[in-house]
Formats: sequence, structure tokens, C-alpha cells
Amino acid sequence: MATKSLKLPMIICSFLLLVGCSAARKPKALRHRRPCKRLVFYFHDILYNGHNAKNSTSAIVGAPAWGNTIHLTPQNHFGNIVVFDDPITLDNNLHSPRVGRAQGFYLYDKKEVFTSWIGMSFVFNSTRHKGTINFAGADPILSKTRDISVIGGTGDFRMSRGIATLATDAYEGEVYFRLRCDIKLYECCEFAIPLISAPKGVKRKWSCRDGPMDLQVGYPLGLHLGHSSDSKGSSTIACTSMSSAKESEEESWIGRIFYNWAQ
Amino acid sequence: MATKSLKLPMIICSFLLLVGCSAARKPKALRHRRPCKRLVFYFHDILYNGHNAKNSTSAIVGAPAWGNTIHLTPQNHFGNIVVFDDPITLDNNLHSPRVGRAQGFYLYDKKEVFTSWIGMSFVFNSTRHKGTINFAGADPILSKTRDISVIGGTGDFRMSRGIATLATDAYEGEVYFRLRCDIKLYECCEFAIPLISAPKGVKRKWSCRDGPMDLQVGYPLGLHLGHSSDSKGSSTIACTSMSSAKESEEESWIGRIFYNWAQ
Amino acid sequence: MATKSLKLPMIICSFLLLVGCSAARKPKALRHRRPCKRLVFYFHDILYNGHNAKNSTSAIVGAPAWGNTIHLTPQNHFGNIVVFDDPITLDNNLHSPRVGRAQGFYLYDKKEVFTSWIGMSFVFNSTRHKGTINFAGADPILSKTRDISVIGGTGDFRMSRGIATLATDAYEGEVYFRLRCDIKLYECCEFAIPLISAPKGVKRKWSCRDGPMDLQVGYPLGLHLGHSSDSKGSSTIACTSMSSAKESEEESWIGRIFYNWAQ
Repeated sequence: MATKSLKLPMIICSFLLLVGCSAARKPKALRHRRPCKRLVFYFHDILYNGHNAKNSTSAIVGAPAWGNTIHLTPQNHFGNIVVFDDPITLDNNLHSPRVGRAQGFYLYDKKEVFTSWIGMSFVFNSTRHKGTINFAGADPILSKTRDISVIGGTGDFRMSRGIATLATDAYEGEVYFRLRCDIKLYECCEFAIPLISAPKGVKRKWSCRDGPMDLQVGYPLGLHLGHSSDSKGSSTIACTSMSSAKESEEESWIGRIFYNWAQ
Repeated sequence: MATKSLKLPMIICSFLLLVGCSAARKPKALRHRRPCKRLVFYFHDILYNGHNAKNSTSAIVGAPAWGNTIHLTPQNHFGNIVVFDDPITLDNNLHSPRVGRAQGFYLYDKKEVFTSWIGMSFVFNSTRHKGTINFAGADPILSKTRDISVIGGTGDFRMSRGIATLATDAYEGEVYFRLRCDIKLYECCEFAIPLISAPKGVKRKWSCRDGPMDLQVGYPLGLHLGHSSDSKGSSTIACTSMSSAKESEEESWIGRIFYNWAQ
Repeated sequence: MATKSLKLPMIICSFLLLVGCSAARKPKALRHRRPCKRLVFYFHDILYNGHNAKNSTSAIVGAPAWGNTIHLTPQNHFGNIVVFDDPITLDNNLHSPRVGRAQGFYLYDKKEVFTSWIGMSFVFNSTRHKGTINFAGADPILSKTRDISVIGGTGDFRMSRGIATLATDAYEGEVYFRLRCDIKLYECCEFAIPLISAPKGVKRKWSCRDGPMDLQVGYPLGLHLGHSSDSKGSSTIACTSMSSAKESEEESWIGRIFYNWAQ
């Protein structure tokens, strides 16, 4: 009798341990990644050319021996360093409301073809968001789209990491460039209370997530539950019901992925 | 009899699974973040102005067409790039012992107001610490405090990530700037044996943590333990006792957060 | 009888909870880190000196007031900014096939000794790999080896983080520098289907891991299994067998650490 009553709990426990082990180790092993935040912006670069002192948002500040700081050098501008403070808009209209500034530098680093390297921040200080997103990486301008790294962030974007896809949306000669920047953050941190509405002096708690975490745990758990034909009702249900609770939470996350704002 | 003897284990097992599932998935979902290391430094920038070749620790090396490399340009120094090698001290005294060097560059990137973008490393090579902390980000100089990103580190700070809060502690004209840098690392890696005392040639193991990890797991576990009125003595205690063991370990971490050093 | 039959399950369950708790919290607490990918390259920098316009791969583009952009400045080149587009090879031969380009900038930032700060990308676009690895950090040139940070990546190296060890492999005067770059990635993301073989337009799933994750979970589990003398056969075996399954997977990872490629 005792033997019989022992069997089932033993099986369940073995199964539990199996699930426990795999649940604890899988999240690190295979985390399918989807953005926890996605933001699309345009920024507008008007390069100083000797005649547009008032309108220009950027200027050449470094050049090789065979160049100068007024005209972009020959050989695909190799060696030119440009410092910029470009307005950011939500659409492709230079005259749309500015929601932030793109600030930093880019440099042309190849003689044979246009290609650049960029180090910059998106700086937001609106009623909607406060903080910065920091970028770095190679920007091969002639590619239709190219990716740079989101290497960090502060304020509402503190500790962010991700990928930003740049695309040249339009250009006029060597003076005006409009870039589309599609930011996909895979590591997001958020304050319990947003920065803009938090009372001064109150210490704000914040927390992080990487991706909408659905497949992260749901996938290996589901897999093992499927394998195990020994597991009985109650426990399986307990886990499955949590799983679906998770999924609905996840949907709300996905719903928030396309994320726009107006100042 | 068997039925009766089965009930309690079943309940416990269901509960265990519940805890197991939530424990495995919560750490990713909501990790409240506190620094795993905090360091406060001052660094001192003396800009070359044509007359202080000996004392200066930085120099203008890039300027727009309307500027030069001796004098900061008008329009809030827009376009000036400065390379620096500034001494780091533990207090706000320029003549205090140097515990490291702040090396890199900053550039002024706005015409209407002073603001800069900074890429730099703190380089330590003392008996206390060896390694570098790498920073990047927008630095709106006129803000009382502003945050830049810790984008990486090497040696004792390998693979670090975090936020550094800069504050202008003092300045004299356009020559001397003293910055306070409050570094909060949220991802820390450490060698089992510190770099400075490790024998040469021995391969050093190292490990990482993000934050003092208390709320990370303790919070959801505690929550579920509170909800479940079915769970019986021994197992609950097993977990609680581990929890408190954790907390005391965590305290020792928090105790190490304010972390000073002298060369 | 019921009491007796209850005892063992209770013990097992307590043990399970113990393991469950520790498994869930340990991965964050102490993760011994080994690279998930390791890559060794050489890159070749030929600095423009006024006479080698055709062969040079880099040029001085910034200099302090006492310097110019043709000759490196005295005082250990303090203040010189160099933009480069250097070929990457798999061995130390400048004429070997190029597998990519090292693009970005470095600057000399100390008067008393040669030391630099580097911001660059390795750009790959071969049949073997597509993508970029982004670097930043202090590069004290005279050290036999020195570490900089891998701050991000795109394409096949998307979301990478790690450490790159630079070593000056050879130099000729102030014109030719050959650097060995030993890249250790501790955070790797991979597409299920590699970028180069994926059909166009198909959305590619990708996932991430940090380190070959062996000690990450295996270590604390092993520890607790050792401690617990109460645990009985089946459950222990369940976990151990998974552990060894893990280890063999891990070996295959380690086997892939030394990772070379030819175009």
C-alpha cells in the first residue's frame, strides 16, 4: 500500500525536477529575441558649406592634409570628421515638430566608396520622454539599410541595448541628408513611475527585461510537458495556466512595441 | 488510505511547480536594479590656451572653418574637438594623489548652448585596481547633473555596464574644469582572485552578476509563498532559510557598494 | 502507514524546492564566464606621411595647435586623430586575403608616453560572414597586450559583447602598424539560419546565450546534490542525466570556440 502511494508522488517529483532543471537552464541557453521597445525617427543633417551658417546643423571639423574644413575632401570624403546637432522628427518633414536632437559626430573612413563611422546620442527632453539613447558603429552610407549598435542609454532609456537600422531617406547634393532611424531595443529598463511624472526627490525603482520573454520560458516548458505522459492533472494545469497568463501579458507587450510619441 | 496519503504530496508538488515556474521566469521579467558597484571620482581638465603648455592636460584638435585650435570657437564652441588625459582623484583637490587617468575626447555639438559628447576611459593601474571603464554619451554641460553610459570595461571592470552621473564641480574661465563622476555599475564581473594579487600565468576564473539580486528572485518567491496557504512546514522553511542566507550575502554586497580606494 | 508513506515524498519535495530555489537564483549570482565565440584577426595600418598617398590606409585628420596633419606631433603624438580603413587578414601577412575591414578612428591622448583611444568597427561582408563588431576603449600602445571593449555588433554578430585583446605584432617607423586582435565574445546571438544562406524576405529568428553556460547551472546543482544525502534514486538521476546531456552539448560549444574562417 505504501509502495503504491509512493509511486505517483515519486513520478511527479522526478518530473518536477526535470522541469525545474530545464526551466532554470533554458532561459540562458536559447532566448529568442524580439524587441521590448521599437521607435522610428527621422533626423535631418544640414552640413555647413561656407554659405549656410544660419541653417546648418553640422560642420566639418577635421580633414586630412589634402582637405579643408569648408569643402568635403575628394576620395569619398575620406578623413572628414563632422560634428552635428540634428533635429529629430516623427515623420520625414524637416519642418515637423522636433521631438529631440541627434548629437555627436560621424567621420568618412574609406577612399574608394562613401562609408562612415558614427558616434551619437538621441537626446529627448519632452513632456513625453526624458533621456538619451547612445549609438556607435559603422555606417556604410550607400547600403539601402545598415545597422549600428545601441550601446546604452539614460533616463527613460537607461541601460538600453539594441540595434538601430539607418536608411538614407533623402539627400540634396552634399548639404542635406535625411536619415530614417528604426530603433529596436532588446534590453529595456523602465521606472515604475515614468521620469516625467515622478515627484522630485523620490527615489524611483526601475526594472529591466530583455525581449517580450514569451519563448524564453514558455518554449522549453511546453516542450517538456509534451514529452512527459506521466504527469497528472493538477500540476500540469497549474503550469499551463500560468503559461497562458504569461502569453496574454506578452501580447500587451507586443501591443506596445510600436510606440510613437508627439511632443 | 492511499488517497489520503497522496493528497498532501500532490498539493505540495503543485505548489512546487508553481513556485518553480514563477522562479524561473520572473528574474527576466522584473528585475529591480540596484548597483553592484558604485565608485565616485573627480577628474581635472586643464585646456591648452596657448600659454599653459606645461600644465595643460587637454588640447583642441578639431575646429570648424570659422575656428582654430588655440581658442575655443564662438557659438558655444560648436565643432571643437578636445583630446584629454586628465588626472583622477578621490576628492575635489587637483593636488590629491592621482588614482588613475581619464583619457579620450569630447566635442562641443550645439551652437545655441554649451553641450558636449564624450567618449573616454578611466584607466587604473594602481596597487588597488587594474583595468579600464569605458564611457560614451551626451553631456549637456550646463545641467547640474547628467548621465552618460558605461559601455564596457576591462581588467577588474571587465564587461561592466552602468550609468555615470557627471556634475561640474568647479571651473575657472575656459581653462580649468573639475568634474565629479558618480559611477553606478549594474553589471559587474569579478575574478575569484583579484588581478593584482594573482600569480602570473595562472588562468583566472571570473564571474558576473547584475545588481545585488535580492528583489530579483526574493520578491516573486516571497509573493507566492504568501499566497499559498496549503504549503506545509518543512518545504517552506527550506526555501525561507535559503532566502535569508541570500539576504545576508546581499547585505555584504550592499556594504561594498560604497567603495573607495587610495593608491 | 500513511505517515510513513508521506515522509519520503516530503523529503524529496523539500529537496526539490531547495534545488529549485538555488537553480533559479544562482545563474544570476555566480556565472563563471567563458567565451561563446573567439576570433583572432590581424589588421594593418599604413599611415599617410605625405609620400604614400596610394598605399596608405589611414590619415591624420586632427592635430593640436602645435601640430599639423602631415606629420605626427611631438610629445608622443598627443592630440593627433587618425581615421583609418585597414584590411583585416587571418594571419600576419599584409598580402593575405582580406576577410574584412577595420574602420574608425584612434587618437593619441597622452604627452608623456604613447597611448591611444580607439573607436572602430570590424566590417565583414564575405561568403562566410556578414556583419560588424563594434569596439571602444583605451589602447595603451606600449603594453604588450591591452584590452578594449566589444560594445556591440550587427548581422552575424548582433548584440555581441566581450573583450578584445590587442597586441602590436609589428611596426615600421611611424608608418606601418600591424595589430593582432583576439576577440572573446561573452554574449553571442545567432540566427537559426545563418544570414548568408537565408532566403531574402524570410524573417529570421535569432537567439542569444552568454558563455558556454556549463558552470552556470551545473555548478550549484552539483553542489546541492552532493550535500543532500536524503535524495533518492530516480529524481537525482533525472537531474544528473540532464546535467551530462548538457555537458556534451557544452563540449560541442567549446569545440566551436576556436573559430576561423577564410573568404
